[in-house]
Amino acid sequence: MTWFENVNKINYEGPQSKNPLAFKFYNPEEKINGQTMEEFLRFGVAYWHTFTADLSDPFGTGTAIRPWDKYTGMDQAKARVEAAFEFFDKIGAKYFCFHDVDIAPEGDTLKETYQNLDTITAMIKDYMKDSDVKLLWNTANNFTNPRFVHGAASSNNADVFAYSAAKVKKGLEIGKELGAENYVFWGGREGYETLLNTDLKLEQDNLGRFFQMAVDYAKEIGFDAQFLIEPKPKEPTTHQYDFDVQSAHAFLLNYGLADKFKFNIEANHATLAGHTFEHELRYARVNGMLGSVDANQGDPLLGWDTDEFPADIYSITLAMYEIIKNGGLGSGGLNFDAKARRGSFDPEDLFYAHIAGMDHFAVGYKVANQLVQDKVFENIIDDRYDSYKNGVGLDIVSGKADFKSLEKHALGLGDIKNKSGRLEVIKATVNQYILNAYSK
Amino acid sequence: MTWFENVNKINYEGPQSKNPLAFKFYNPEEKINGQTMEEFLRFGVAYWHTFTADLSDPFGTGTAIRPWDKYTGMDQAKARVEAAFEFFDKIGAKYFCFHDVDIAPEGDTLKETYQNLDTITAMIKDYMKDSDVKLLWNTANNFTNPRFVHGAASSNNADVFAYSAAKVKKGLEIGKELGAENYVFWGGREGYETLLNTDLKLEQDNLGRFFQMAVDYAKEIGFDAQFLIEPKPKEPTTHQYDFDVQSAHAFLLNYGLADKFKFNIEANHATLAGHTFEHELRYARVNGMLGSVDANQGDPLLGWDTDEFPADIYSITLAMYEIIKNGGLGSGGLNFDAKARRGSFDPEDLFYAHIAGMDHFAVGYKVANQLVQDKVFENIIDDRYDSYKNGVGLDIVSGKADFKSLEKHALGLGDIKNKSGRLEVIKATVNQYILNAYSK
Amino acid sequence: MTWFENVNKINYEGPQSKNPLAFKFYNPEEKINGQTMEEFLRFGVAYWHTFTADLSDPFGTGTAIRPWDKYTGMDQAKARVEAAFEFFDKIGAKYFCFHDVDIAPEGDTLKETYQNLDTITAMIKDYMKDSDVKLLWNTANNFTNPRFVHGAASSNNADVFAYSAAKVKKGLEIGKELGAENYVFWGGREGYETLLNTDLKLEQDNLGRFFQMAVDYAKEIGFDAQFLIEPKPKEPTTHQYDFDVQSAHAFLLNYGLADKFKFNIEANHATLAGHTFEHELRYARVNGMLGSVDANQGDPLLGWDTDEFPADIYSITLAMYEIIKNGGLGSGGLNFDAKARRGSFDPEDLFYAHIAGMDHFAVGYKVANQLVQDKVFENIIDDRYDSYKNGVGLDIVSGKADFKSLEKHALGLGDIKNKSGRLEVIKATVNQYILNAYSK
Amino acid sequence: MTWFENVNKINYEGPQSKNPLAFKFYNPEEKINGQTMEEFLRFGVAYWHTFTADLSDPFGTGTAIRPWDKYTGMDQAKARVEAAFEFFDKIGAKYFCFHDVDIAPEGDTLKETYQNLDTITAMIKDYMKDSDVKLLWNTANNFTNPRFVHGAASSNNADVFAYSAAKVKKGLEIGKELGAENYVFWGGREGYETLLNTDLKLEQDNLGRFFQMAVDYAKEIGFDAQFLIEPKPKEPTTHQYDFDVQSAHAFLLNYGLADKFKFNIEANHATLAGHTFEHELRYARVNGMLGSVDANQGDPLLGWDTDEFPADIYSITLAMYEIIKNGGLGSGGLNFDAKARRGSFDPEDLFYAHIAGMDHFAVGYKVANQLVQDKVFENIIDDRYDSYKNGVGLDIVSGKADFKSLEKHALGLGDIKNKSGRLEVIKATVNQYILNAYSK
Repeated sequence: MTWFENVNKINYEGPQSKNPLAFKFYNPEEKINGQTMEEFLRFGVAYWHTFTADLSDPFGTGTAIRPWDKYTGMDQAKARVEAAFEFFDKIGAKYFCFHDVDIAPEGDTLKETYQNLDTITAMIKDYMKDSDVKLLWNTANNFTNPRFVHGAASSNNADVFAYSAAKVKKGLEIGKELGAENYVFWGGREGYETLLNTDLKLEQDNLGRFFQMAVDYAKEIGFDAQFLIEPKPKEPTTHQYDFDVQSAHAFLLNYGLADKFKFNIEANHATLAGHTFEHELRYARVNGMLGSVDANQGDPLLGWDTDEFPADIYSITLAMYEIIKNGGLGSGGLNFDAKARRGSFDPEDLFYAHIAGMDHFAVGYKVANQLVQDKVFENIIDDRYDSYKNGVGLDIVSGKADFKSLEKHALGLGDIKNKSGRLEVIKATVNQYILNAYSK
Repeated sequence: MTWFENVNKINYEGPQSKNPLAFKFYNPEEKINGQTMEEFLRFGVAYWHTFTADLSDPFGTGTAIRPWDKYTGMDQAKARVEAAFEFFDKIGAKYFCFHDVDIAPEGDTLKETYQNLDTITAMIKDYMKDSDVKLLWNTANNFTNPRFVHGAASSNNADVFAYSAAKVKKGLEIGKELGAENYVFWGGREGYETLLNTDLKLEQDNLGRFFQMAVDYAKEIGFDAQFLIEPKPKEPTTHQYDFDVQSAHAFLLNYGLADKFKFNIEANHATLAGHTFEHELRYARVNGMLGSVDANQGDPLLGWDTDEFPADIYSITLAMYEIIKNGGLGSGGLNFDAKARRGSFDPEDLFYAHIAGMDHFAVGYKVANQLVQDKVFENIIDDRYDSYKNGVGLDIVSGKADFKSLEKHALGLGDIKNKSGRLEVIKATVNQYILNAYSK
Repeated sequence: MTWFENVNKINYEGPQSKNPLAFKFYNPEEKINGQTMEEFLRFGVAYWHTFTADLSDPFGTGTAIRPWDKYTGMDQAKARVEAAFEFFDKIGAKYFCFHDVDIAPEGDTLKETYQNLDTITAMIKDYMKDSDVKLLWNTANNFTNPRFVHGAASSNNADVFAYSAAKVKKGLEIGKELGAENYVFWGGREGYETLLNTDLKLEQDNLGRFFQMAVDYAKEIGFDAQFLIEPKPKEPTTHQYDFDVQSAHAFLLNYGLADKFKFNIEANHATLAGHTFEHELRYARVNGMLGSVDANQGDPLLGWDTDEFPADIYSITLAMYEIIKNGGLGSGGLNFDAKARRGSFDPEDLFYAHIAGMDHFAVGYKVANQLVQDKVFENIIDDRYDSYKNGVGLDIVSGKADFKSLEKHALGLGDIKNKSGRLEVIKATVNQYILNAYSK
Repeated sequence: MTWFENVNKINYEGPQSKNPLAFKFYNPEEKINGQTMEEFLRFGVAYWHTFTADLSDPFGTGTAIRPWDKYTGMDQAKARVEAAFEFFDKIGAKYFCFHDVDIAPEGDTLKETYQNLDTITAMIKDYMKDSDVKLLWNTANNFTNPRFVHGAASSNNADVFAYSAAKVKKGLEIGKELGAENYVFWGGREGYETLLNTDLKLEQDNLGRFFQMAVDYAKEIGFDAQFLIEPKPKEPTTHQYDFDVQSAHAFLLNYGLADKFKFNIEANHATLAGHTFEHELRYARVNGMLGSVDANQGDPLLGWDTDEFPADIYSITLAMYEIIKNGGLGSGGLNFDAKARRGSFDPEDLFYAHIAGMDHFAVGYKVANQLVQDKVFENIIDDRYDSYKNGVGLDIVSGKADFKSLEKHALGLGDIKNKSGRLEVIKATVNQYILNAYSK
């Protein structure tokens, strides 16, 4: 049987193709630096947006047409697994990601929830055996159910902390069972609505305790996936504790957890925090903490998480630049944490949207790779910072200088000459690389 | 003599050129739809950013290296004219724009200011005779001097209203003298710091009176330039009266001035108002009020007017789409109301920045033109709104329907079928057009 | 029977009361300028937030504990009416507001929806007879159902236009039946997701046609409620056509509808548009278009509509200042378009939240009234603009001046003297009025 | 002689006073908890805004009328010292703060700059001997001069690093000479315009080296002032390295500097970073790093640093709550890093603005103190988090729980009960405390 009867396997047809159900830029087999695009890009499909969600928004009920929604409960959950693996196969994605509640409905009790999860986990495991699709990461949804109204690990209610712990424990077990390469923590309600009734210190301490328990339990069961924190500044809470990468880094350093975690960085969360996507990636990269990527984009004129499929070649190119400089994402990948727009409600739109995302990342990869090959930014930086290669600059970076030696140097200086930063030229160069990418 | 000794006339060298002092995409002679790029794009140089300003910001004094700043007063003003026309010639710009105070320093009295303006106006007129450069628009700077602290035409001080009127009167005369094709009103301090001490009604009424007087005086002296209002939402004031195009449209309609004015739309002002550039252009276009463009861009993560040189091909392409659909800009043009970054302080950076801006608009023009030629958006819209071509839809647009006939129709409907908006496909198509633009 | 068994009628206990279920500042019987607070403030309860919604958000299902949610369908709808009138009575609200879908569930067909509405309308009418509660306004929800995915009157689908017309027609009939004093249009999905597939002109023309049909039909049936447009800049759409008051004013002027509509101004929508609440009120007031108010507040650090109960005495005081200067709201009122926070999920929280809102507006009213009585702002403005009372200023406002007479005046001026705006003193004065309000 | 001839010493006249040149709420001698207001609040005057700056903005030259500006150079600098100490005396401020360039003009060489600084430092020292005014903190302005165009300690130019070091070295010496209680680092240009030409790692490493050198040199000369970092997210750079308190905390932890620094927290910088003022204070407090405060406020609708005098009693009250809970600010104080508005240009406006700021902080102090005395928030939190006092909650906070014990607990739970957060009641309570503050 088939859940996407109007769609066949998506093939690469090249930049001029007019076929909406074909790749124009993403050629899975194309090799760059000895690796295929497929190997390097490690695209993942987000189970929640693609198979579970219905495109509702705060002002409207769901518009999505999803054939499997004719079922409910566990039947629906099973149909979703079938649809998912058909989709993975047709789109050519090798990874997927899920929250617990995406794959199986919550039961009336935690025990029943566990049973539902076990049933679907077994089914997914079977499907994985027959395919080359892997689990990029899984996670626990500790934010949708009303019990998490005041947080999960940072709840004021110890029962909720315990319940959250149980769900993550189960998640770690499922991750191990399915060979997940990472395990993600997005603190959906770990934050506050208002400081007026919040014990900030206790909540953050508890969050630290929770993460340590997760580390301990994963070690105990021999689950060696990379742990990832996914920062977000606000929404649904007024202030999320993992505001951005650097804030979450402070948290990890403060609680002695910095060597156990890396970051899962989402483009839209970056912009909501007032940063560019590449800023968050860069900060994580130079601190050795770039783990994985939620590949989407926001609308800079809107103040909420729009989770759009990535379409901005600029942002993608600069993201891919960071990823290349990072030597790839290791066990991480490019997870499309993105939803087709509410107005793009057909099942086929799931394909269109993923094709777009994959094509755009392929372009960004190609452009970034050429920039790296030509050392465009490296040459700029090499020249721009050359004063630190000798003389007083070398003394500074090698630890020989102090305020007295530097003052002496400064007193001997005439007018200081700076070099133009040439930003306009650099931006034009990036445009030139993009526009020339498919012209040679 | 020369003010830019390191720069020769900028030539077109094609997309692969590595020469930073050459056009890669803007070929002035290239014909599109029977017009050369130069004729259609009508690039203008902003006198203030390019020849007058020093790249200071609220936290730092000027960094710009401008050879003519070795002079002061009228000598400096004259050197600027020389530098300007050398620049126009070398960059190949056919238009320029200025505020009164950009070209000549204020004197100790208004009379002396007039004299300074007359001297420089005569000099500019001489230079214009020997070149094919035209004045796109001029305007009066009624915001820098402390006398405008509480506004100009909307000041609480009638003397300031009168002084502003005198300056605009002189501006209209200078515009006529130099053959300006437009006259611009940017209400730099027409707005309020706080409502708490503001008579909103009186200030807006006075603004309406002022515009009417300007219309009357231009008619009296036979100056037939197009009048343009340039909206901006805030900065320097907390609320500018010409907040955005639609707000300013309300103002013009309210004061019976809508047929006398069009809009000069700035990209950065659009984004500060919470709109895309193309939104402002579209609204003006469909209301017959798209007059001219201030071609720059902002940083969506920053809350002030950064006036960057335009580099975002997406935004430029969609802007050029509106301009093409408008049948061009008529007497308007593409004025680079943009400054090189504070870190791009060399005289050569003025060339780099303008080359970038012109190249990027040439790309956007080419891509937008291809989109129009292929009727990409037109076909989408034609299909998407086809329900209004007959039946109940035709009744609606032709004025035959009323609530009773529509209710009758609605009661007879079964489930309503909507078509997917296919936004992801459309965005991917735009990317495909950009990436294919120079590959054929 | 009772739906709020833990709550009795709310009484006034004065500023020092520690009773959370009592008014501290709102004394319904207290007279100000010859009118009771109750008469002047005309508080309204929003049916949707208070009786229908469940406090779900994009990341979580509903938390609200609402006893009537043990029922479903029409039984639930009937229980809500009972709860509503019990609530109105206990809280002492004299007005309420609703969307069609708030009071009655949609049926399988439009006809069935009508029947459901008729049943509940009759029930509400009965309840109204036995109370002194009036319908401030009603409206049609043309945004929640998936059929409105691409808009209602601005949909690309003529069937949706027709369906929307039928719903508004019914809404006008219901409004007439229940004696609604106003009828509101909030264009929930009247806007666009993207310009790329949008015919802006057709959509706005259709919106104009729709409003005209509504005006015509109301006249036909003799429904003389005030028509109100409620502006909002974005959310759910990327750009809402009624962006803010001035933009919507342009729309109304452009389509010849300005004398048929006033505005229903919401505080949170104002701030999302980049304006203060008082700005929107002021603009509407001085243009004779201040109709009614949605009394809530947003969080200036969040980019979405939070619809909080109003708690900011500054904003409320300045809002009440505008309302007092408007001579009250006429047929309008202060509708609490506000929801208790997701974490305030008890039925009692509905009382706490409304008590807070009513108390805070009572404070703002009292402070604003004292400011008006003492002519605080009036004296500031009288002094500040006194230059327009004679001489050149009087010539300007009386239409005698032109650019030539003004230039002559300007040439005769020495240094222009401006007066300090004294904003810091004015703000301190507002604080002093607030802090002294209950100390005398 | 006198520089403020129209102003006498400011006295306390009580809440009803109509005298604009009197305190209404700040009574320096009033004791709260055994300390006078003057002792606890430790108000500081910002030299730059009050005596040096001219109220220019990016669109206008200075409007400020400052009698001492009839002088230039060192004469002007000396007149400013006289004016400053007259101002301190009349307003009753006991602390002041300055950047090096505020007090003395830069010379043609660094050596001459040192000489200028020495001259004025000696003069200030003399004035301090004759008064009880102390230096709250000083700092080096390493951002205004064009040499800092690409940063100071994070410049790509080693000469600039050295020059910056020399200036801070001198600053530490001046601080010691004048008995400064703190030394502040605001990284005015420590950040980047664009990542495209930035070596983020090297720049941050250099910043770390710079801070370490400063620590070392202060120790060497026996200057034991508290070192303070002042975070700001952006402006003038696109991204400032000390984005907010938590980000800067990460930086300090990462470079082993966390025990040497505390934070100087500015209200307006907090809001620009997307936080409330109280959030930044709370985070610093619970981490033992709340050092001092820049007491101002921003406009939430504007995207730049407006540095307004603090007028929002809500924000001030919650700030004072944090300060009281911190046991005061220790060596820190409340520095008015605030400027009178451009329209408030009279010398007297400096008094009005400071009176307003001091009055408003006195109110906030009084209200916050009452909230603390009555344990309003403490009781809420005590009740709200009581589940952590025994049982599973106590196991969690005492380190006895792990995922297995928590799962066991969770499996035994029935429906989890949460308590309402009662935010609406809490906000109403805060209003009640404010409105009752002066009524008893």
